[in-house]
Amino acid sequence: MAGYVSDAVVRRLPAYYRHLRELDVEGVVQISSRDLGERMKMTSSQIRQDINSFGGEGRQGYGYDVSALKEHIRIVLGLQRDHRMIILGAGRIGRAVASYVGFRLEGYKTVALFDMNAEEQAEGEIPIWPIAELEKRVPELDASVAVLTVPVCAAQSLLDRAYRLGIRAFWNFAQVDLKYPRDAIVVNVHLSDSLYTLGYRMNEKGKG
Amino acid sequence: MAGYVSDAVVRRLPAYYRHLRELDVEGVVQISSRDLGERMKMTSSQIRQDINSFGGEGRQGYGYDVSALKEHIRIVLGLQRDHRMIILGAGRIGRAVASYVGFRLEGYKTVALFDMNAEEQAEGEIPIWPIAELEKRVPELDASVAVLTVPVCAAQSLLDRAYRLGIRAFWNFAQVDLKYPRDAIVVNVHLSDSLYTLGYRMNEKGKG
Repeated sequence: MAGYVSDAVVRRLPAYYRHLRELDVEGVVQISSRDLGERMKMTSSQIRQDINSFGGEGRQGYGYDVSALKEHIRIVLGLQRDHRMIILGAGRIGRAVASYVGFRLEGYKTVALFDMNAEEQAEGEIPIWPIAELEKRVPELDASVAVLTVPVCAAQSLLDRAYRLGIRAFWNFAQVDLKYPRDAIVVNVHLSDSLYTLGYRMNEKGKG
Repeated sequence: MAGYVSDAVVRRLPAYYRHLRELDVEGVVQISSRDLGERMKMTSSQIRQDINSFGGEGRQGYGYDVSALKEHIRIVLGLQRDHRMIILGAGRIGRAVASYVGFRLEGYKTVALFDMNAEEQAEGEIPIWPIAELEKRVPELDASVAVLTVPVCAAQSLLDRAYRLGIRAFWNFAQVDLKYPRDAIVVNVHLSDSLYTLGYRMNEKGKG
């Protein structure tokens, strides 16, 4: 049975899913913790501990059944369910998220974009409505996730408005830490943080 | 003096920088580890340990000098230097990175985009060249960073080509773990991983 899943393991879960999906596509049926660890640049004991903590099962001398473990993680990640998303901010990032096929394939379906721009438009088959219509449109959309791809100054007030409309899950691309009630979930994508990490590593290599 | 900086601390460094920059803008001159911890949702002892490990200095009963600590982290992150970037893949994400002012303000300047599309175009003032011209153009660009915003199937071969042209730092948006020589640095942005973490949290809340 699954034990306590730490934040660090939760962050690694999608990587497990990604690697197992790749292995499945490559036709690999079973894999040892050592081989999976080599692939994911982790030790075999860390692999075993992680997988055990989220309830995946391996067998001594056999390892893991790739397809079964992939399906298990798929359920743990909630990917077997459909998630209807609205995207707040129809700039480049917002439109990129809306049109990315990979998200749709895993059950994350963008049902509408909203933008400061008052004109009604569309991104492929997805409507883009003026943000002024948020309160009018959202109740009909049955959306559970809002993606925040707006400038920093607009992010907090849009989170608040979407929360009042019943949305509890937020995927935030704005470079700001948002305040939100306890029953909401916010996952931040801090792109600059990632880029600056690269700068740190370059700095370090430069020294060596 | 700075001690050993763990991977986890490196990942948190940009967040320290972001919060200290915000505090500086807000006019805050000094901050205790407790107040900084509250802001960053960390314990004060973790804050002290982190800052100590990357060589930041605090004073008993005073805390940290916001501006000095911010500048220290800026140097640790290599943000005092200019980084010239090329972007491989001029789709929406590539163009968004190219035109994002925040990166430019911190010294990451996009000098060219390259795209499968053979036509020469531009993104604002930045040229977009056909990827076939990579070997011809890169030697003149003095770039140190390549951003990979191409489909999965193209990412590895473009990394290899850019590496042969002398580029050692890669910021990878393709949902694939790339192979690279030991003297290269790759930082991955796995957007799906971040979205799927949100799904996990939603799943957990649904259970509770």
